[in-house]
Amino acid sequence: MGDKSMKWTLARRAARLNPSTIREILKISERPGIISLAGGLPSADTFPVAAMQEATARVLREQPREALQYAASEGFGPLCEWVAGELSSQGLHCDADQVLITTGSQQGLDLVGKVLIDPGSTVAVESPTYLGALQAFAPYEAEFLSVEGDDDGPLPAALTAAAAQGARFMYLLPNYQNPSGRCLGAPRRQALAAAALQAGLPVVEDNPYGDLWFDAPPPPPLAATLGVGARGQKDGGAVYLGSFSKVLAPGLRLGYLVAPQALYPKLLQAKQAADLHTPGFNQRVVFEVIKDGFLRDHVPTIRARYKLHRDATQAALVTHLQALQGRDGSRVHWQTPAGGMFFWLQLPTEVDATALLPQAVAAGMAYVPGAPFFADGGHANTLRLSFVTVPPAQIEAGVAALAGVLKAALGRD
Amino acid sequence: MGDKSMKWTLARRAARLNPSTIREILKISERPGIISLAGGLPSADTFPVAAMQEATARVLREQPREALQYAASEGFGPLCEWVAGELSSQGLHCDADQVLITTGSQQGLDLVGKVLIDPGSTVAVESPTYLGALQAFAPYEAEFLSVEGDDDGPLPAALTAAAAQGARFMYLLPNYQNPSGRCLGAPRRQALAAAALQAGLPVVEDNPYGDLWFDAPPPPPLAATLGVGARGQKDGGAVYLGSFSKVLAPGLRLGYLVAPQALYPKLLQAKQAADLHTPGFNQRVVFEVIKDGFLRDHVPTIRARYKLHRDATQAALVTHLQALQGRDGSRVHWQTPAGGMFFWLQLPTEVDATALLPQAVAAGMAYVPGAPFFADGGHANTLRLSFVTVPPAQIEAGVAALAGVLKAALGRD
Repeated sequence: MGDKSMKWTLARRAARLNPSTIREILKISERPGIISLAGGLPSADTFPVAAMQEATARVLREQPREALQYAASEGFGPLCEWVAGELSSQGLHCDADQVLITTGSQQGLDLVGKVLIDPGSTVAVESPTYLGALQAFAPYEAEFLSVEGDDDGPLPAALTAAAAQGARFMYLLPNYQNPSGRCLGAPRRQALAAAALQAGLPVVEDNPYGDLWFDAPPPPPLAATLGVGARGQKDGGAVYLGSFSKVLAPGLRLGYLVAPQALYPKLLQAKQAADLHTPGFNQRVVFEVIKDGFLRDHVPTIRARYKLHRDATQAALVTHLQALQGRDGSRVHWQTPAGGMFFWLQLPTEVDATALLPQAVAAGMAYVPGAPFFADGGHANTLRLSFVTVPPAQIEAGVAALAGVLKAALGRD
Repeated sequence: MGDKSMKWTLARRAARLNPSTIREILKISERPGIISLAGGLPSADTFPVAAMQEATARVLREQPREALQYAASEGFGPLCEWVAGELSSQGLHCDADQVLITTGSQQGLDLVGKVLIDPGSTVAVESPTYLGALQAFAPYEAEFLSVEGDDDGPLPAALTAAAAQGARFMYLLPNYQNPSGRCLGAPRRQALAAAALQAGLPVVEDNPYGDLWFDAPPPPPLAATLGVGARGQKDGGAVYLGSFSKVLAPGLRLGYLVAPQALYPKLLQAKQAADLHTPGFNQRVVFEVIKDGFLRDHVPTIRARYKLHRDATQAALVTHLQALQGRDGSRVHWQTPAGGMFFWLQLPTEVDATALLPQAVAAGMAYVPGAPFFADGGHANTLRLSFVTVPPAQIEAGVAALAGVLKAALGRD
């Protein structure tokens, strides 16, 4: 019928939406028989199934109409109250009407990007940084500025330099970062917060892993110093993001953000445009699970479990890689994470972890190459090991396989 | 300490994020004692609570680890299969790998905007159109082009003109539209699809209400003619959006879109950046509810209920407004909706429905003024009545109150 062909014109930002190489790797790592230290999943053994069964039954018995109906974009009021109370007790003073419940904290990152990033805006990030944040910010056509750091975190002078280069905000994940496992100490946090205040540079602080500490809780968030603009305080210099994915279960997709008044109304409108509201059913179920202090008993069981896995991984690394361990570019360097889910390995500079992966998979294990976590590229000689989903005995075998492949590549076996 | 004040710089698009006037109206309408025909909520009496209780218990008993873990961004495979099968049986041929499960169909609109709208892009919309779509597209800095229509829908020549003016796509809600209640007949659909094909103008077709027909199902979707690029067909000219909000419950936030290969990968990446995936728990629960044909028995009960409400509203309108009924600008015009949840009233041109609302509330009822549903403004003399949440006897009283206020305003009581 002489029709023109349909002409779909993509938005320019669509060029910044690309398949995740890591997702492709994860598909490989899911092959039977592979010891996968690649995935970033929490252990399903920690999911509180009995509590969920009880809470879902109660919500559907006592408040089905409210739980299944449309609801407020801000989130379920009592859950917002709970978040505000919990954070305030941890030293981050905030009010319930500053809390926005999000569909996982990934959505918080997307909303932040939508409200704060223009095409060409500079966003300062850690080096390495969380890949999901890069993926959330990139479609808004952010230009990333990697802030130089060391084992203790980003360098305050580098943050100041980023502010001088016009960064709109710095994105920070201070607790047991994905991918590096790094936890910023109190002195570095104070120095970074002081530098941010001095430079007038806002901070977006992401904290999915902070509850997963092994020996002692992490220092207070930078947002406690920068403020989020609680009532009676001056307006805040930080947005703070949190999640129930690691302390309850990620399949519920439940996170939150806390924002100053300069931003909250815009984030709320962006939320409304994005999905109207986070499922009220999920919010009420989670509130039923946690409202009487469930997490006080539950989270320590996760910590204890993950610590055993951390110890097994550390022991395996020492056993199999100590001969190569060192800080110069010809050796393997890692820090023992004090919480969270990840070890981060810096390999000899000549090793390309992406190129090595097929050999590792052939040897029966998988990891995630570190390069995609760097906004400015490079760093091919890094990799991430997730230690929480594989039983300790298999971790040993996986690390042994990795060491064998690595030594072979280096001609040192 | 001599700090600069923190400098939050908003993205330019944030100027297009604004509070919904309708949300403010809904707050007023929730006052006790007000007969609210304002809200756009489905009736909570239709929520299948028993089926939900059974399905949540089963999912948490049989597949808790999978339901509570991270999951694929595309959606739960069996649910995608179900959607593809259901749509194909309705004449919209598509494959499961073209289905993307979304966090409510509102998210589908957001993803479409993210992938297809550049600042200044023209998007053709109906007049009036769904406010949530305007809110989803506006932050991507769309310029809206209202396509002229009549009681049967947009005019094909006006669609052709929109294409000539460079519209990227046309957004259409052909079945029992929110707000107008309008359902496009088969001839108009065919004429619009032919015009779209002729002009090469893609269509984004939204269908949240199509299952809620009262006497006969609506004609096949335009997407059935335009194609969504199923295997063995040429690539499609339509994106199709659907939802479980009106046939099960909106508090689950579960919708889907079906997209041609030209778009699907970008929409998938946008989805991943937006919230990683729609809650797997909710997807599995809904699949458990519907997999054995539950909707075949359940949806007719919703239709029957809503039809009684429709009839009560129509009867009340005739009783109280027939004296004013007519098509010229001095009279009140409405169509009797053949499905869905809404009546749409065009009042005498001199009446401002927004200005009249306080008097209506004082008289004990609330409605939603129609003006916000027009992308190009104007149309102050329109209003929407939602008829599904208020019992028929109260509908009568609400319409009587509205008629009284209207007649007083016109000096005709």
